[in-house]
Amino acid sequence: MTDRYRRGIDIAEQLAADKLAHFVESGVAEVAPDFARMVIEFAFGDIYAREGLDLRSRELIAIAALAASGQAGPQLRVHVATAEKSGISKREVVEVLMQIALYSGFPTALNALASCHDLLTDHDCVPGTCG
Amino acid sequence: MTDRYRRGIDIAEQLAADKLAHFVESGVAEVAPDFARMVIEFAFGDIYAREGLDLRSRELIAIAALAASGQAGPQLRVHVATAEKSGISKREVVEVLMQIALYSGFPTALNALASCHDLLTDHDCVPGTCG
Amino acid sequence: MTDRYRRGIDIAEQLAADKLAHFVESGVAEVAPDFARMVIEFAFGDIYAREGLDLRSRELIAIAALAASGQAGPQLRVHVATAEKSGISKREVVEVLMQIALYSGFPTALNALASCHDLLTDHDCVPGTCG
Amino acid sequence: MTDRYRRGIDIAEQLAADKLAHFVESGVAEVAPDFARMVIEFAFGDIYAREGLDLRSRELIAIAALAASGQAGPQLRVHVATAEKSGISKREVVEVLMQIALYSGFPTALNALASCHDLLTDHDCVPGTCG
Amino acid sequence: MTDRYRRGIDIAEQLAADKLAHFVESGVAEVAPDFARMVIEFAFGDIYAREGLDLRSRELIAIAALAASGQAGPQLRVHVATAEKSGISKREVVEVLMQIALYSGFPTALNALASCHDLLTDHDCVPGTCG
Amino acid sequence: MTDRYRRGIDIAEQLAADKLAHFVESGVAEVAPDFARMVIEFAFGDIYAREGLDLRSRELIAIAALAASGQAGPQLRVHVATAEKSGISKREVVEVLMQIALYSGFPTALNALASCHDLLTDHDCVPGTCG
Repeated sequence: MTDRYRRGIDIAEQLAADKLAHFVESGVAEVAPDFARMVIEFAFGDIYAREGLDLRSRELIAIAALAASGQAGPQLRVHVATAEKSGISKREVVEVLMQIALYSGFPTALNALASCHDLLTDHDCVPGTCG
Repeated sequence: MTDRYRRGIDIAEQLAADKLAHFVESGVAEVAPDFARMVIEFAFGDIYAREGLDLRSRELIAIAALAASGQAGPQLRVHVATAEKSGISKREVVEVLMQIALYSGFPTALNALASCHDLLTDHDCVPGTCG
Repeated sequence: MTDRYRRGIDIAEQLAADKLAHFVESGVAEVAPDFARMVIEFAFGDIYAREGLDLRSRELIAIAALAASGQAGPQLRVHVATAEKSGISKREVVEVLMQIALYSGFPTALNALASCHDLLTDHDCVPGTCG
Repeated sequence: MTDRYRRGIDIAEQLAADKLAHFVESGVAEVAPDFARMVIEFAFGDIYAREGLDLRSRELIAIAALAASGQAGPQLRVHVATAEKSGISKREVVEVLMQIALYSGFPTALNALASCHDLLTDHDCVPGTCG
Repeated sequence: MTDRYRRGIDIAEQLAADKLAHFVESGVAEVAPDFARMVIEFAFGDIYAREGLDLRSRELIAIAALAASGQAGPQLRVHVATAEKSGISKREVVEVLMQIALYSGFPTALNALASCHDLLTDHDCVPGTCG
Repeated sequence: MTDRYRRGIDIAEQLAADKLAHFVESGVAEVAPDFARMVIEFAFGDIYAREGLDLRSRELIAIAALAASGQAGPQLRVHVATAEKSGISKREVVEVLMQIALYSGFPTALNALASCHDLLTDHDCVPGTCG
């Protein structure tokens, strides 16, 4: 186990002990175990681990870039689901996805909002009663 | 309610009283109500409402651009489902989607045709007996 | 020379005797002469030659799909330059490119307008004096 | 039936008698029969039939380009399912999809691997016991 | 002049009195003056003007989404050039563009860095002498 | 200097001592030196260095994926320029770029051929006299 992998797993678990690591490895890990390891090493061990940008900013960038691409649905859901761990509120995620309409058009923004609909609804309050 | 919204809703309902407005607002309206309103205002109240291009042309453009992008499936289906309201026949929609192969490749055109298959089949006549 | 090629060249020349044929063959014809022929045969001899959609509609679709892709600058310019041969006015081209913002975002629409700027300016009248 | 179609069907059947032809024609053949024929004629009768590149290379290119696009899931599955007919092993397909991460990012590569997961798992041996 | 336009111009000028407004209107303003106005109104007057996300976050999102698309070079340069007005340092911009490699691949990230090279070089210090 | 970097530089130099390393580092190396190193480490030290796929196949995949994306012009040129080092002839590169039309449409294939025109012309023989 490389240092890059250990550092990457630490950050991935800090973001979402259950979701991120599981996502990256499930399915893919069976047919391409080296690739699952490389994603952890490079994405989290190399890039996310760098100084120079705080975690909240890195997660805003991840959500923006994944939504803008319009074809990274599963990855967008993982980052939206764990956004609050980096200090990004549900309302802020909605603002990010709305802003994506400027750069990638309305269908891409609408589909991103629809695909994350359940993650962005606040289940802790009766609809219509909390802001 | 702004003039832009009122004008947008008028056009959206003219295109498809039931489908368009419903599509734009369902799901998204709950988590991003302002955005559902903005789409109506900008897409239909600002752009579609402009003189300078007839509605049939605007719908041809919508179908072509949505199909070409390859990642706007739900929106493509809405515009294909309502194309006849703008004077575009099912056969013409098929021609548009075939032509998209030139610009976006065969998989994009094939997937557009497959995803709209049910909307493009004429259920009013026995197969092989109507033009 | 196949029938498909002859039919394709006829349509390409009808659209733009000088521009389209020249574009398709120049540069590419030297390194891939078969491909230059195939583009004429398939794009114009097979697709454009089909009944079921008038030439004006086919050109609206071409301009919409090429602009929406955001990476077909040279081809977009050829079709915009010859649009009037299919009965599409400069003003209508501007409306198409504006509408593309809905589907592909503002940068794509702005860059399409900027890249065709010279083709869309009316040189026959003093700026500010014609509609 | 044109020579191009006959030649195309021969190659398509050589690749995958059951899968390729079926894929291209099902669904699409009902609403756009001419297009199903054109795909066979152009893709296999014109391009694949050309000398100058062996079939194994053409299939590597197909898998790479379809995976890189990120929006040709059904077509990617067909070519991955039939790769062995062109002498490309499952392990080589996995290597291709991993390499795509360099050009199209991790989500595109991960989604390609996940969508072909069942096709890339070797069901003929107990996991962990074959290379 | 609508309220939306006035509010949009205010924000655009706050970001970059000289660059943003000039960019949006130059070239495009001549052939599509309504569109230049709409971009200001919608992008800055409607979206950027919203509460719920601070300006620094909105600019990180703009840079991430524009870089991820790989085809919004002019717009990326404008936002990178004005990033410091929103409290984003040159080093942070470099971190954003590096992170884009995860989502859109190495070529897209390398080309974004290369296209903004002059904007990201610190001209205030002798090379090698400042961090 | 990591093992991954050393191994990556070895492969990059084997492919094109002068072009690849120079490309990856020039421009980008000044503003993002860590990123230039990471590209060498990950692309060549991790992925290209893997067994399981020969170098000729890896270069076919690189050319196919870069051309299919339509927005990696500089990278496509580097790999086309060095293709012969991996046993890929100019004629084979032309076949790859033609085949890309199937997956990404004619404009993308035409623009790829046009952008590599000078690299694909055989300067060692009088035009029309060599195959």
